[in-house]
Amino acid sequence: MATEQITLYSSKACPFCQRVELAISEAGANINRYEIDLSNKPDWYASKISSSGKVPSLAYGGPKVSPDLPSPESTKIAESLILLEFVADLYPDAHLLPGAPIERAQVRFFIDAVSTKVLPAYAGFVMRGEPKEKLFGVLEDAQALLSPAGFAVGNSWTIADAAIAPFLGRLDLMLGNDVGKFEEGVGRAAHAEIFEGDRFARLQKYYKDLTGRKSWKATFDGEYILDNSRARFARAA
Amino acid sequence: MATEQITLYSSKACPFCQRVELAISEAGANINRYEIDLSNKPDWYASKISSSGKVPSLAYGGPKVSPDLPSPESTKIAESLILLEFVADLYPDAHLLPGAPIERAQVRFFIDAVSTKVLPAYAGFVMRGEPKEKLFGVLEDAQALLSPAGFAVGNSWTIADAAIAPFLGRLDLMLGNDVGKFEEGVGRAAHAEIFEGDRFARLQKYYKDLTGRKSWKATFDGEYILDNSRARFARAA
Ligand SMILES: N[C@@H](CCC(=O)N[C@@H](CS)C(=O)NCC(=O)O)C(=O)O
Ligand SMILES: N[C@@H](CCC(=O)N[C@@H](CS)C(=O)NCC(=O)O)C(=O)O
Repeated sequence: MATEQITLYSSKACPFCQRVELAISEAGANINRYEIDLSNKPDWYASKISSSGKVPSLAYGGPKVSPDLPSPESTKIAESLILLEFVADLYPDAHLLPGAPIERAQVRFFIDAVSTKVLPAYAGFVMRGEPKEKLFGVLEDAQALLSPAGFAVGNSWTIADAAIAPFLGRLDLMLGNDVGKFEEGVGRAAHAEIFEGDRFARLQKYYKDLTGRKSWKATFDGEYILDNSRARFARAA
Repeated sequence: MATEQITLYSSKACPFCQRVELAISEAGANINRYEIDLSNKPDWYASKISSSGKVPSLAYGGPKVSPDLPSPESTKIAESLILLEFVADLYPDAHLLPGAPIERAQVRFFIDAVSTKVLPAYAGFVMRGEPKEKLFGVLEDAQALLSPAGFAVGNSWTIADAAIAPFLGRLDLMLGNDVGKFEEGVGRAAHAEIFEGDRFARLQKYYKDLTGRKSWKATFDGEYILDNSRARFARAA
Protein backbone atom coordinates (compact mmCIF):
# COMPACT_ATOMS: atom_id res chain seq x y z
CA MET A 1 0.00 0.00 0.00
CA ALA A 2 2.61 2.48 1.14
CA THR A 3 4.25 2.37 -2.26
CA GLU A 4 1.78 4.83 -3.77
CA GLN A 5 2.33 8.51 -3.10
CA ILE A 6 -0.25 10.17 -0.85
CA THR A 7 -0.69 13.92 -0.56
CA LEU A 8 -3.15 15.40 1.92
CA TYR A 9 -4.37 18.94 1.28
CA SER A 10 -5.20 20.31 4.67
CA SER A 11 -5.58 23.43 6.78
CA LYS A 12 -4.56 23.88 10.40
CA ALA A 13 -7.74 25.91 10.91
CA CYS A 14 -10.08 23.14 9.75
CA PRO A 15 -11.55 20.58 12.16
CA PHE A 16 -12.52 18.25 9.30
CA CYS A 17 -8.87 18.20 8.25
CA GLN A 18 -7.72 17.40 11.75
CA ARG A 19 -9.92 14.31 11.70
CA VAL A 20 -7.91 12.90 8.83
CA GLU A 21 -4.57 14.02 10.24
CA LEU A 22 -5.39 12.29 13.52
CA ALA A 23 -6.10 9.02 11.72
CA ILE A 24 -2.91 9.30 9.68
CA SER A 25 -0.92 10.01 12.81
CA GLU A 26 -2.50 7.09 14.67
CA ALA A 27 -1.66 4.84 11.71
CA GLY A 28 1.95 5.99 11.91
CA ALA A 29 1.77 6.69 8.18
CA ASN A 30 4.23 8.82 6.34
CA ILE A 31 2.52 11.02 3.78
CA ASN A 32 2.93 14.44 2.16
CA ARG A 33 0.94 17.25 3.68
CA TYR A 34 0.22 20.53 1.92
CA GLU A 35 -1.25 23.50 3.79
CA ILE A 36 -4.05 25.30 1.97
CA ASP A 37 -4.58 28.87 3.11
CA LEU A 38 -8.38 29.09 3.26
CA SER A 39 -8.34 32.87 3.08
CA ASN A 40 -6.32 32.75 -0.11
CA LYS A 41 -6.87 29.44 -1.90
CA PRO A 42 -4.66 28.75 -4.91
CA ASP A 43 -6.55 28.56 -8.22
CA TRP A 44 -5.35 25.07 -9.03
CA TYR A 45 -6.95 23.68 -5.88
CA ALA A 46 -10.57 23.73 -7.05
CA SER A 47 -9.72 23.00 -10.67
CA LYS A 48 -7.29 20.12 -10.10
CA ILE A 49 -7.93 18.67 -6.65
CA SER A 50 -11.35 19.29 -5.15
CA SER A 51 -14.16 20.71 -7.26
CA SER A 52 -16.00 21.91 -4.13
CA GLY A 53 -12.87 23.84 -3.16
CA LYS A 54 -13.04 22.34 0.33
CA VAL A 55 -10.35 20.81 2.47
CA PRO A 56 -9.49 18.12 3.38
CA SER A 57 -8.79 16.23 0.21
CA LEU A 58 -6.23 13.73 -0.86
CA ALA A 59 -4.34 12.77 -4.01
CA TYR A 60 -3.46 9.08 -4.16
CA GLY A 61 -1.06 7.45 -6.59
CA GLY A 62 0.22 8.79 -9.87
CA PRO A 63 3.71 10.18 -10.42
CA LYS A 64 5.68 11.89 -7.67
CA VAL A 65 4.99 15.56 -8.28
CA SER A 66 5.13 18.78 -6.33
CA PRO A 67 1.82 19.13 -4.41
CA ASP A 68 1.09 22.47 -6.07
CA LEU A 69 1.44 20.87 -9.50
CA PRO A 70 -0.93 17.94 -9.04
CA SER A 71 -0.98 15.20 -11.64
CA PRO A 72 -4.19 14.27 -13.45
CA GLU A 73 -3.12 10.66 -12.93
CA SER A 74 -3.59 10.59 -9.17
CA THR A 75 -7.02 9.70 -7.76
CA LYS A 76 -8.56 12.55 -5.79
CA ILE A 77 -10.68 11.87 -2.71
CA ALA A 78 -12.62 14.44 -0.70
CA GLU A 79 -14.85 14.42 2.42
CA SER A 80 -13.32 13.84 5.83
CA LEU A 81 -15.50 10.83 6.72
CA ILE A 82 -14.67 9.07 3.47
CA LEU A 83 -11.01 9.80 4.11
CA LEU A 84 -11.23 8.30 7.61
CA GLU A 85 -12.53 5.03 6.15
CA PHE A 86 -9.86 5.24 3.46
CA VAL A 87 -7.03 5.62 5.97
CA ALA A 88 -8.47 2.72 8.00
CA ASP A 89 -8.62 0.57 4.86
CA LEU A 90 -5.14 1.57 3.76
CA TYR A 91 -3.46 0.72 7.06
CA PRO A 92 -5.37 -2.31 8.35
CA ASP A 93 -2.65 -3.17 10.85
CA ALA A 94 -3.31 0.06 12.73
CA HIS A 95 -6.84 -1.21 13.59
CA LEU A 96 -8.44 2.21 13.23
CA LEU A 97 -11.65 0.25 12.76
CA PRO A 98 -12.36 -2.88 14.82
CA GLY A 99 -12.49 -6.19 13.00
CA ALA A 100 -15.94 -7.39 14.08
CA PRO A 101 -18.79 -6.21 11.82
CA ILE A 102 -20.97 -5.29 14.79
CA GLU A 103 -18.27 -3.08 16.32
CA ARG A 104 -17.58 -1.47 12.97
CA ALA A 105 -21.28 -0.64 12.82
CA GLN A 106 -21.05 0.89 16.29
CA VAL A 107 -18.15 3.08 15.17
CA ARG A 108 -20.19 4.25 12.19
CA PHE A 109 -23.23 4.86 14.36
CA PHE A 110 -21.14 7.08 16.64
CA ILE A 111 -19.78 8.96 13.62
CA ASP A 112 -23.32 9.43 12.29
CA ALA A 113 -24.38 10.90 15.64
CA VAL A 114 -21.43 13.31 15.48
CA SER A 115 -22.48 14.44 11.98
CA THR A 116 -26.19 14.71 12.54
CA LYS A 117 -26.26 15.90 16.17
CA VAL A 118 -22.97 17.10 17.68
CA LEU A 119 -21.88 19.24 14.72
CA PRO A 120 -25.15 21.12 14.26
CA ALA A 121 -25.33 21.82 18.01
CA TYR A 122 -21.68 22.93 18.10
CA ALA A 123 -22.19 25.26 15.15
CA GLY A 124 -25.45 26.52 16.61
CA PHE A 125 -23.83 27.58 19.85
CA VAL A 126 -20.43 28.79 18.62
CA MET A 127 -21.32 30.27 15.23
CA ARG A 128 -24.92 31.36 15.67
CA GLY A 129 -25.20 32.09 19.38
CA GLU A 130 -28.03 29.66 20.03
CA PRO A 131 -28.89 28.85 23.67
CA LYS A 132 -26.54 26.44 25.42
CA GLU A 133 -29.23 23.91 26.38
CA LYS A 134 -29.31 22.26 22.97
CA LEU A 135 -25.53 21.81 22.96
CA PHE A 136 -25.54 20.43 26.49
CA GLY A 137 -28.29 17.95 25.67
CA VAL A 138 -26.47 16.71 22.60
CA LEU A 139 -23.17 16.39 24.46
CA GLU A 140 -24.96 14.42 27.14
CA ASP A 141 -26.29 12.03 24.49
CA ALA A 142 -22.81 11.69 22.98
CA GLN A 143 -21.38 11.05 26.43
CA ALA A 144 -23.93 8.28 26.92
CA LEU A 145 -22.71 6.61 23.73
CA LEU A 146 -19.09 6.44 24.91
CA SER A 147 -17.76 3.11 26.10
CA PRO A 148 -17.71 2.93 29.93
CA ALA A 149 -14.01 3.64 30.39
CA GLY A 150 -12.18 3.50 27.06
CA PHE A 151 -12.71 5.36 23.83
CA ALA A 152 -15.86 6.07 21.84
CA VAL A 153 -16.28 2.40 20.94
CA GLY A 154 -14.38 -0.14 23.02
CA ASN A 155 -10.93 0.24 24.51
CA SER A 156 -8.99 1.21 21.39
CA TRP A 157 -8.81 4.47 19.51
CA THR A 158 -10.88 4.32 16.32
CA ILE A 159 -12.03 6.67 13.59
CA ALA A 160 -15.07 7.40 15.79
CA ASP A 161 -12.65 9.26 18.06
CA ALA A 162 -11.18 11.05 15.07
CA ALA A 163 -14.63 12.23 14.06
CA ILE A 164 -15.49 13.98 17.34
CA ALA A 165 -12.11 15.00 18.82
CA PRO A 166 -11.47 18.15 16.73
CA PHE A 167 -14.82 19.57 17.77
CA LEU A 168 -14.26 18.89 21.46
CA GLY A 169 -10.84 20.53 21.17
CA ARG A 170 -12.31 23.62 19.56
CA LEU A 171 -15.09 23.80 22.15
CA ASP A 172 -12.49 23.72 24.91
CA LEU A 173 -10.30 26.32 23.25
CA MET A 174 -12.95 28.72 22.04
CA LEU A 175 -15.33 28.65 24.98
CA GLY A 176 -12.40 28.73 27.42
CA ASN A 177 -11.31 31.95 25.75
CA ASP A 178 -14.85 33.23 25.37
CA VAL A 179 -14.52 33.28 21.60
CA GLY A 180 -17.71 32.72 19.61
CA LYS A 181 -20.91 34.42 18.58
CA PHE A 182 -22.28 35.03 22.07
CA GLU A 183 -22.36 37.78 24.69
CA GLU A 184 -19.22 38.26 26.77
CA GLY A 185 -18.92 35.66 29.53
CA VAL A 186 -21.38 33.16 28.01
CA GLY A 187 -18.65 31.04 26.44
CA ARG A 188 -16.56 30.92 29.58
CA ALA A 189 -19.58 29.93 31.69
CA ALA A 190 -20.49 27.14 29.28
CA HIS A 191 -16.86 26.02 29.32
CA ALA A 192 -16.93 25.59 33.09
CA GLU A 193 -20.09 23.47 32.87
CA ILE A 194 -18.79 21.24 30.08
CA PHE A 195 -15.16 20.87 31.08
CA GLU A 196 -15.43 21.01 34.90
CA GLY A 197 -19.01 20.26 35.96
CA ASP A 198 -20.13 16.86 37.26
CA ARG A 199 -22.68 16.45 34.49
CA PHE A 200 -19.93 15.81 31.96
CA ALA A 201 -17.47 13.81 34.09
CA ARG A 202 -17.30 10.91 31.63
CA LEU A 203 -16.81 13.26 28.70
CA GLN A 204 -14.02 15.09 30.55
CA LYS A 205 -12.13 11.85 31.17
CA TYR A 206 -12.60 10.89 27.54
CA TYR A 207 -11.37 14.27 26.36
CA LYS A 208 -8.29 13.95 28.55
CA ASP A 209 -7.58 10.52 27.07
CA LEU A 210 -7.91 11.86 23.52
CA THR A 211 -5.77 14.93 24.02
CA GLY A 212 -3.09 13.06 25.95
CA ARG A 213 -2.15 11.17 22.81
CA LYS A 214 0.77 11.91 20.52
CA SER A 215 -1.64 12.14 17.59
CA TRP A 216 -3.43 15.04 19.27
CA LYS A 217 -0.31 17.03 19.96
CA ALA A 218 0.92 16.50 16.41
CA THR A 219 -2.29 17.79 14.81
CA PHE A 220 -3.75 20.54 17.02
CA ASP A 221 -2.21 24.01 16.92
CA GLY A 222 -4.28 25.81 19.54
CA GLU A 223 -2.58 29.16 19.18
CA TYR A 224 -3.14 29.24 15.43
CA ILE A 225 -6.79 28.20 15.74
CA LEU A 226 -7.42 30.74 18.47
CA ASP A 227 -5.90 33.61 16.50
CA ASN A 228 -7.97 32.60 13.51
CA SER A 229 -11.18 32.37 15.52
CA ARG A 230 -10.60 35.60 17.43
CA ALA A 231 -10.33 37.45 14.15
CA ARG A 232 -13.54 35.85 12.97
CA PHE A 233 -15.63 36.44 16.08
CA ALA A 234 -14.26 39.81 17.24
CA ARG A 235 -16.94 41.57 19.32
CA ALA A 236 -17.74 45.18 18.65
CA ALA A 237 -15.97 47.12 21.42
CA MET B 1 -20.90 -15.07 10.95
CA ALA B 2 -24.11 -16.66 9.85
CA THR B 3 -24.46 -18.35 13.23
CA GLU B 4 -25.90 -15.24 14.90
CA GLN B 5 -29.58 -14.54 14.35
CA ILE B 6 -30.36 -11.48 12.21
CA THR B 7 -33.75 -9.80 12.07
CA LEU B 8 -34.40 -6.91 9.70
CA TYR B 9 -37.31 -4.61 10.50
CA SER B 10 -38.41 -3.26 7.19
CA SER B 11 -41.26 -1.80 5.18
CA LYS B 12 -42.13 -2.48 1.57
CA ALA B 13 -42.99 1.21 1.20
CA CYS B 14 -39.58 2.47 2.33
CA PRO B 15 -36.73 3.09 -0.14
CA PHE B 16 -34.14 3.12 2.67
CA CYS B 17 -35.28 -0.36 3.63
CA GLN B 18 -35.01 -1.59 0.06
CA ARG B 19 -31.35 -0.54 0.06
CA VAL B 20 -30.63 -3.01 2.84
CA GLU B 21 -32.83 -5.72 1.37
CA LEU B 22 -31.01 -5.41 -1.94
CA ALA B 23 -27.64 -5.89 -0.23
CA ILE B 24 -28.91 -8.88 1.73
CA SER B 25 -30.32 -10.40 -1.43
CA GLU B 26 -27.09 -9.83 -3.36
CA ALA B 27 -25.17 -11.45 -0.49
CA GLY B 28 -27.46 -14.47 -0.73
CA ALA B 29 -27.96 -14.20 3.01
CA ASN B 30 -30.76 -15.88 4.86
CA ILE B 31 -32.19 -13.63 7.55
CA ASN B 32 -35.51 -12.95 9.28
CA ARG B 33 -37.55 -10.09 7.91
CA TYR B 34 -40.35 -8.40 9.80
CA GLU B 35 -42.71 -5.97 8.08
CA ILE B 36 -43.42 -2.78 10.02
CA ASP B 37 -46.65 -1.06 9.02
CA LEU B 38 -45.59 2.60 8.97
CA SER B 39 -49.16 3.80 9.29
CA ASN B 40 -49.64 1.75 12.43
CA LYS B 41 -46.31 1.08 14.09
CA PRO B 42 -46.32 -1.32 17.02
CA ASP B 43 -45.42 0.29 20.38
CA TRP B 44 -42.51 -2.02 21.02
CA TYR B 45 -40.75 -0.87 17.89
CA ALA B 46 -39.55 2.53 19.15
CA SER B 47 -39.05 1.35 22.72
CA LYS B 48 -37.18 -1.87 21.99
CA ILE B 49 -35.67 -1.61 18.50
CA SER B 50 -35.15 1.87 17.10
CA SER B 51 -35.52 4.90 19.34
CA SER B 52 -36.11 7.14 16.31
CA GLY B 53 -38.99 4.87 15.31
CA LYS B 54 -37.63 4.65 11.79
CA VAL B 55 -37.12 1.68 9.52
CA PRO B 56 -34.87 0.00 8.49
CA SER B 57 -33.24 -1.39 11.58
CA LEU B 58 -31.73 -4.68 12.50
CA ALA B 59 -31.36 -6.85 15.57
CA TYR B 60 -28.18 -8.91 15.57
CA GLY B 61 -27.36 -11.81 17.87
CA GLY B 62 -28.97 -12.69 21.17
CA PRO B 63 -31.43 -15.53 21.65
CA LYS B 64 -33.77 -16.71 18.92
CA VAL B 65 -37.00 -14.87 19.67
CA SER B 66 -40.12 -13.89 17.84
CA PRO B 67 -39.41 -10.57 16.03
CA ASP B 68 -42.27 -8.84 17.82
CA LEU B 69 -40.81 -9.84 21.20
CA PRO B 70 -37.26 -8.53 20.68
CA SER B 71 -34.60 -9.51 23.19
CA PRO B 72 -32.61 -6.85 25.05
CA GLU B 73 -29.56 -9.03 24.38
CA SER B 74 -29.42 -8.48 20.64
CA THR B 75 -27.49 -5.49 19.28
CA LYS B 76 -29.70 -3.03 17.44
CA ILE B 77 -28.44 -1.14 14.39
CA ALA B 78 -30.26 1.61 12.52
CA GLU B 79 -29.60 3.81 9.46
CA SER B 80 -29.63 2.29 6.00
CA LEU B 81 -26.09 3.37 5.07
CA ILE B 82 -24.62 1.89 8.23
CA LEU B 83 -26.56 -1.28 7.52
CA LEU B 84 -25.17 -1.45 3.98
CA GLU B 85 -21.60 -1.36 5.34
CA PHE B 86 -22.63 -3.91 7.98
CA VAL B 87 -23.98 -6.34 5.40
CA ALA B 88 -20.82 -5.88 3.31
CA ASP B 89 -18.66 -6.57 6.39
CA LEU B 90 -20.73 -9.55 7.43
CA TYR B 91 -20.58 -11.29 4.06
CA PRO B 92 -17.13 -10.44 2.70
CA ASP B 93 -17.26 -13.21 0.11
CA ALA B 94 -20.13 -11.45 -1.64
CA HIS B 95 -17.80 -8.52 -2.45
CA LEU B 96 -20.48 -5.90 -1.93
CA LEU B 97 -17.55 -3.53 -1.44
CA PRO B 98 -14.43 -3.83 -3.61
CA GLY B 99 -11.21 -4.88 -1.89
CA ALA B 100 -8.96 -1.98 -2.94
CA PRO B 101 -9.06 1.01 -0.57
CA ILE B 102 -9.28 3.48 -3.42
CA GLU B 103 -12.29 1.73 -4.95
CA ARG B 104 -13.95 1.49 -1.57
CA ALA B 105 -13.52 5.25 -1.29
CA GLN B 106 -15.12 5.67 -4.71
CA VAL B 107 -18.13 3.61 -3.59
CA ARG B 108 -18.46 5.82 -0.51
CA PHE B 109 -18.10 8.96 -2.59
CA PHE B 110 -20.94 7.82 -4.83
CA ILE B 111 -23.09 7.05 -1.77
CA ASP B 112 -22.31 10.49 -0.34
CA ALA B 113 -23.43 12.09 -3.61
CA VAL B 114 -26.69 10.12 -3.44
CA SER B 115 -27.31 11.35 0.12
CA THR B 116 -26.35 14.95 -0.33
CA LYS B 117 -27.53 15.54 -3.91
CA VAL B 118 -29.80 12.89 -5.46
CA LEU B 119 -32.10 12.47 -2.46
CA PRO B 120 -32.78 16.17 -1.85
CA ALA B 121 -33.47 16.70 -5.56
CA TYR B 122 -35.74 13.64 -5.71
CA ALA B 123 -37.69 14.78 -2.66
CA GLY B 124 -37.83 18.33 -4.00
CA PHE B 125 -39.45 17.26 -7.24
CA VAL B 126 -41.69 14.43 -6.06
CA MET B 127 -42.71 15.62 -2.59
CA ARG B 128 -42.55 19.40 -2.90
CA GLY B 129 -43.24 20.03 -6.57
CA GLU B 130 -40.01 21.93 -7.24
CA PRO B 131 -39.06 22.61 -10.89
CA LYS B 132 -37.61 19.66 -12.78
CA GLU B 133 -34.34 21.40 -13.74
CA LYS B 134 -32.68 20.78 -10.40
CA LEU B 135 -33.54 17.08 -10.51
CA PHE B 136 -32.31 16.76 -14.08
CA GLY B 137 -29.03 18.50 -13.27
CA VAL B 138 -28.39 16.26 -10.30
CA LEU B 139 -29.24 13.11 -12.27
CA GLU B 140 -26.85 14.24 -14.97
CA ASP B 141 -24.08 14.60 -12.37
CA ALA B 142 -24.89 11.15 -10.96
CA GLN B 143 -24.85 9.72 -14.47
CA ALA B 144 -21.39 11.22 -14.99
CA LEU B 145 -20.14 9.40 -11.89
CA LEU B 146 -21.22 5.97 -13.18
CA SER B 147 -18.55 3.66 -14.53
CA PRO B 148 -18.50 3.69 -18.36
CA ALA B 149 -20.40 0.46 -18.89
CA GLY B 150 -20.77 -1.44 -15.61
CA PHE B 151 -22.30 -0.43 -12.30
CA ALA B 152 -21.86 2.71 -10.20
CA VAL B 153 -18.25 1.84 -9.43
CA GLY B 154 -16.54 -0.71 -11.65
CA ASN B 155 -18.08 -3.77 -13.21
CA SER B 156 -19.56 -5.40 -10.12
CA TRP B 157 -22.65 -4.58 -8.13
CA THR B 158 -21.74 -2.79 -4.87
CA ILE B 159 -23.50 -1.03 -2.04
CA ALA B 160 -23.23 2.17 -4.13
CA ASP B 161 -25.85 0.59 -6.39
CA ALA B 162 -27.96 -0.32 -3.37
CA ALA B 163 -27.90 3.31 -2.25
CA ILE B 164 -29.34 4.79 -5.44
CA ALA B 165 -31.46 2.01 -6.96
CA PRO B 166 -34.58 2.37 -4.77
CA PHE B 167 -34.84 6.04 -5.68
CA LEU B 168 -34.48 5.42 -9.41
CA GLY B 169 -37.13 2.74 -9.14
CA ARG B 170 -39.51 5.09 -7.38
CA LEU B 171 -38.85 7.86 -9.91
CA ASP B 172 -39.71 5.49 -12.74
CA LEU B 173 -42.83 4.22 -11.03
CA MET B 174 -44.18 7.48 -9.67
CA LEU B 175 -43.41 9.79 -12.56
CA GLY B 176 -44.49 7.16 -15.07
CA ASN B 177 -47.87 7.12 -13.32
CA ASP B 178 -47.90 10.88 -12.80
CA VAL B 179 -47.96 10.46 -9.03
CA GLY B 180 -46.33 13.21 -6.97
CA LYS B 181 -46.84 16.74 -5.80
CA PHE B 182 -47.03 18.36 -9.23
CA GLU B 183 -49.66 19.43 -11.73
CA GLU B 184 -51.22 16.73 -13.90
CA GLY B 185 -48.93 15.66 -16.75
CA VAL B 186 -45.73 17.10 -15.26
CA GLY B 187 -44.58 13.77 -13.83
CA ARG B 188 -45.24 11.88 -17.04
CA ALA B 189 -43.37 14.47 -19.11
CA ALA B 190 -40.37 14.32 -16.77
CA HIS B 191 -40.52 10.54 -16.95
CA ALA B 192 -40.18 10.60 -20.73
CA GLU B 193 -37.14 12.86 -20.50
CA ILE B 194 -35.40 10.80 -17.82
CA PHE B 195 -36.28 7.29 -18.94
CA GLU B 196 -36.43 7.74 -22.73
CA GLY B 197 -34.54 10.89 -23.72
CA ASP B 198 -30.98 10.88 -25.12
CA ARG B 199 -29.69 13.04 -22.29
CA PHE B 200 -29.94 10.14 -19.87
CA ALA B 201 -28.93 7.24 -22.13
CA ARG B 202 -26.19 5.99 -19.78
CA LEU B 203 -28.50 6.24 -16.77
CA GLN B 204 -31.20 4.28 -18.64
CA LYS B 205 -28.79 1.45 -19.41
CA TYR B 206 -27.63 1.43 -15.80
CA TYR B 207 -31.21 1.35 -14.55
CA LYS B 208 -31.97 -1.57 -16.84
CA ASP B 209 -28.93 -3.43 -15.49
CA LEU B 210 -30.01 -2.81 -11.89
CA THR B 211 -33.62 -3.80 -12.33
CA GLY B 212 -32.79 -6.87 -14.39
CA ARG B 213 -31.24 -8.49 -11.34
CA LYS B 214 -32.85 -11.09 -9.11
CA SER B 215 -32.20 -8.84 -6.11
CA TRP B 216 -34.38 -6.13 -7.64
CA LYS B 217 -37.29 -8.41 -8.35
CA ALA B 218 -37.12 -9.86 -4.85
CA THR B 219 -37.25 -6.46 -3.13
CA PHE B 220 -39.41 -4.11 -5.19
CA ASP B 221 -43.19 -4.41 -5.01
CA GLY B 222 -44.26 -1.76 -7.50
CA GLU B 223 -47.97 -2.26 -7.09
CA TYR B 224 -47.78 -1.86 -3.33
CA ILE B 225 -45.61 1.25 -3.56
CA LEU B 226 -47.85 2.80 -6.18
CA ASP B 227 -51.01 2.25 -4.14
CA ASN B 228 -49.29 3.76 -1.14
CA SER B 229 -48.07 6.77 -3.07
CA ARG B 230 -51.31 7.36 -4.89
CA ALA B 231 -53.09 7.61 -1.55
CA ARG B 232 -50.49 10.08 -0.34
CA PHE B 233 -50.42 12.34 -3.37
CA ALA B 234 -54.06 12.19 -4.45
CA ARG B 235 -54.91 15.35 -6.41
CA ALA B 236 -58.06 17.28 -5.61
CA ALA B 237 -60.53 16.34 -8.37
N1 LIG C 1 -18.10 17.88 4.58
C1 LIG C 1 -16.72 18.32 4.45
C2 LIG C 1 -16.57 19.69 5.10
C3 LIG C 1 -15.21 20.30 4.87
C4 LIG C 1 -15.21 21.81 5.09
O1 LIG C 1 -16.28 22.40 5.33
N2 LIG C 1 -14.03 22.43 5.05
C5 LIG C 1 -13.95 23.87 5.18
C6 LIG C 1 -12.85 24.32 6.14
S1 LIG C 1 -13.16 23.79 7.79
C7 LIG C 1 -13.62 24.44 3.80
O2 LIG C 1 -12.72 23.96 3.13
N3 LIG C 1 -14.40 25.43 3.36
C8 LIG C 1 -14.23 26.03 2.07
C9 LIG C 1 -13.55 27.34 2.17
O3 LIG C 1 -13.31 27.80 3.31
O4 LIG C 1 -13.26 27.91 1.11
C10 LIG C 1 -15.80 17.29 5.12
O5 LIG C 1 -16.28 16.61 6.04
O6 LIG C 1 -14.66 17.14 4.69
N1 LIG D 1 -31.81 8.10 7.51
C1 LIG D 1 -32.68 6.95 7.62
C2 LIG D 1 -34.03 7.27 7.03
C3 LIG D 1 -35.06 6.18 7.24
C4 LIG D 1 -36.49 6.69 7.05
O1 LIG D 1 -36.71 7.90 6.88
N2 LIG D 1 -37.47 5.78 7.09
C5 LIG D 1 -38.85 6.19 7.03
C6 LIG D 1 -39.65 5.34 6.07
S1 LIG D 1 -39.09 5.51 4.40
C7 LIG D 1 -39.46 6.01 8.40
O2 LIG D 1 -39.30 4.99 9.04
N3 LIG D 1 -40.13 7.06 8.89
C8 LIG D 1 -40.73 7.07 10.20
C9 LIG D 1 -42.19 6.86 10.13
O3 LIG D 1 -42.72 6.84 9.02
O4 LIG D 1 -42.80 6.72 11.19
C10 LIG D 1 -32.03 5.77 6.90
O5 LIG D 1 -31.24 6.00 5.96
O6 LIG D 1 -32.26 4.61 7.31
